[in-house]
Amino acid sequence: MDWAPDSVIVRLGGEIWIKKSWTRRWYLRRLVRNIRVVLEHYDVAYDQIIRRNGRVFVATCEAQASAKRLSRIFGVSSVSPALNTGTDLDAIVNVSLSVAQRILTAGNSFAVRCKRVGKHPYTSQEVCRVVGRRILEALADRKVRVDLDNPDLRIGVEVRDDLAFVFAEVIKGVGGFPLGVQGRIVGLLSGGLDSAVACWLVMKRGCSVVPLYFDNDPYTGESVNKRTVEVARVLSDWAVGFPRSLYIVSYGASLKEIVEGTPRRLTCILCKRLMYRIAERISDRVGAEGLVTGEAIGEQASQTLRNLRVLDEAAERYPVHRPLLGFDKAETEMLARKIGTYEVSARSVEGCEAVPYKPATKAKLEEVMEAESKLDIKKMVDRCVGGLAVVSL
Amino acid sequence: MDWAPDSVIVRLGGEIWIKKSWTRRWYLRRLVRNIRVVLEHYDVAYDQIIRRNGRVFVATCEAQASAKRLSRIFGVSSVSPALNTGTDLDAIVNVSLSVAQRILTAGNSFAVRCKRVGKHPYTSQEVCRVVGRRILEALADRKVRVDLDNPDLRIGVEVRDDLAFVFAEVIKGVGGFPLGVQGRIVGLLSGGLDSAVACWLVMKRGCSVVPLYFDNDPYTGESVNKRTVEVARVLSDWAVGFPRSLYIVSYGASLKEIVEGTPRRLTCILCKRLMYRIAERISDRVGAEGLVTGEAIGEQASQTLRNLRVLDEAAERYPVHRPLLGFDKAETEMLARKIGTYEVSARSVEGCEAVPYKPATKAKLEEVMEAESKLDIKKMVDRCVGGLAVVSL
Repeated sequence: MDWAPDSVIVRLGGEIWIKKSWTRRWYLRRLVRNIRVVLEHYDVAYDQIIRRNGRVFVATCEAQASAKRLSRIFGVSSVSPALNTGTDLDAIVNVSLSVAQRILTAGNSFAVRCKRVGKHPYTSQEVCRVVGRRILEALADRKVRVDLDNPDLRIGVEVRDDLAFVFAEVIKGVGGFPLGVQGRIVGLLSGGLDSAVACWLVMKRGCSVVPLYFDNDPYTGESVNKRTVEVARVLSDWAVGFPRSLYIVSYGASLKEIVEGTPRRLTCILCKRLMYRIAERISDRVGAEGLVTGEAIGEQASQTLRNLRVLDEAAERYPVHRPLLGFDKAETEMLARKIGTYEVSARSVEGCEAVPYKPATKAKLEEVMEAESKLDIKKMVDRCVGGLAVVSL
Repeated sequence: MDWAPDSVIVRLGGEIWIKKSWTRRWYLRRLVRNIRVVLEHYDVAYDQIIRRNGRVFVATCEAQASAKRLSRIFGVSSVSPALNTGTDLDAIVNVSLSVAQRILTAGNSFAVRCKRVGKHPYTSQEVCRVVGRRILEALADRKVRVDLDNPDLRIGVEVRDDLAFVFAEVIKGVGGFPLGVQGRIVGLLSGGLDSAVACWLVMKRGCSVVPLYFDNDPYTGESVNKRTVEVARVLSDWAVGFPRSLYIVSYGASLKEIVEGTPRRLTCILCKRLMYRIAERISDRVGAEGLVTGEAIGEQASQTLRNLRVLDEAAERYPVHRPLLGFDKAETEMLARKIGTYEVSARSVEGCEAVPYKPATKAKLEEVMEAESKLDIKKMVDRCVGGLAVVSL
């Protein structure tokens, strides 16, 4: 759109409005902090970030560029590049008209909408009426017309106390809650499609994710490691201002003990149970409140409802959160495209060679525990946690 | 569309195709059983249901009506009302032409697509070419034309071994896995938006849900009970052939003990922990593999990441599945509309009067356990489970 906005209106998700006032204030503060670090991280120039009546306004000479960045900040429901104006009706009308002159072409239909909070000598309806009439008069030669139901272009006026803005576009934001309003969570990240989307979903709801990767070498190869690092980087881009690191556990030796010392059909279940236990210890260390995994019901043999119960039993002190439980693969893929992990995650890599041909789909807890009794679980956990590496992304 | 199909092509979700052959066969058998009971339940006349090469074909004189029903069966990715034809090219061409004559109007563009599995004396491309040419010739007076990229209408030909069909419409199905391929799960159903959607999501992935409702009378009123029964009925309509019943626990007396005997800020957390414990006992009784709840991170004070950990601790023997963890309210609402529970769930009812003004958002497990030590939890659970009512829907 060929006009030069000097601000961005940032709108918050509807869910924030039903919070109690103190919670809402805290969420807003967090959001403003996140906005600041994102703009600074991406070198987007801005003059100030203003909070007013539950909206956030960013004054910036790079409004279009920053609107795009801002729409990808968790907690933002939509953004609009806008022109700042005085709150007196004349000023609003003049700026609205100049925007209309830039964006309306011959024969276009338009509508004017106004949202107003605070005390002003005019009503919202008055603003719409006056602005609309003025545009019709001034652009009579372009034969523009009003269409309230299905206009070609919408001109928006937003008045909040001492501030007023005119905008012509609403860009959908990513939604959710500001990152950091919930606690920390350890994300079991394999580099595949599911786990990355699962981590992103809890980030969207405000949780800071500590990504944890189990390196299964020699059962998987270097390409899997590389893929995971790349996926973790994409996720980090959604969490600017939060630590950019990947926790890596050398898991191959433990997996070897499982493969060689227990029934093959139980390999995946025993492998995951051990992962949960290690992740719990790492949760202790980083002060997390739980684990998050990419498991979806029935997605793999180890993820039948029965097996999920057997897996869950191994996590004794933290909940295992599985935001993809009800997702179809196609839905997860769609989300991965939006997040930006799809390209990397869908890349063909060698599968884990430890996966048996016929894995158990209905494991019994007793047989699993009997198999585990043949392993020195405590030693395996200690070894893995002891050898933990933290890689900067 | 004004033509008289005599069959419905039922296509399965992509995820079913990556299952091992024995799992896939079992899923298909289950799907065919579910199709049969749905058609019989809704009195849709059909002659036979045929499985062939991973597709299901339903021969029915009510193809349009049954297509709509079939598209809402879990495991179905899409359906097409279709005309059955012989597999020789002449027959296919003739039936395709008769369909084209019915649906193509003057100036329409069209494309022909063919999917073929089995041995036939022609290729798929040949079918498209011959059918397309024949339609162009026969409908020359209507000035129809071929547009492979963006046609007004698509004519599809599906050949599987000894069966062939022609169709002109693909209706999106609900996806997921056939209901019943996973085990049973106890669904904590409040009648509100979230819990119903959560139950539906695990049903979509194949789980049979046993809906469990806690009647908080006198903290909630009769309207809440009524609403839950209605929501449970809507969910049951997605599970034709499975038990239509609602499990109801009289919970008011227990909630009263919590409200009166423990710190008010912990009421919701203690209430939910007790619900989990009761639900576990009911899981034992019905042979379920876990619980499912509508909790989403940060959606309510009791659902902060910290509090979810404290809640989870109370479920000792079953996993608590929370498919909405990463959902925004707006996303849940959208799904509720699709499911059909929105209208009922969004109805205004009295809120629970036991909810405190300032509930704890960061409860500590120790304080929660101390508060519980003042209650006779075992007695409360026994009383609730003892008074369980099972209501037919």
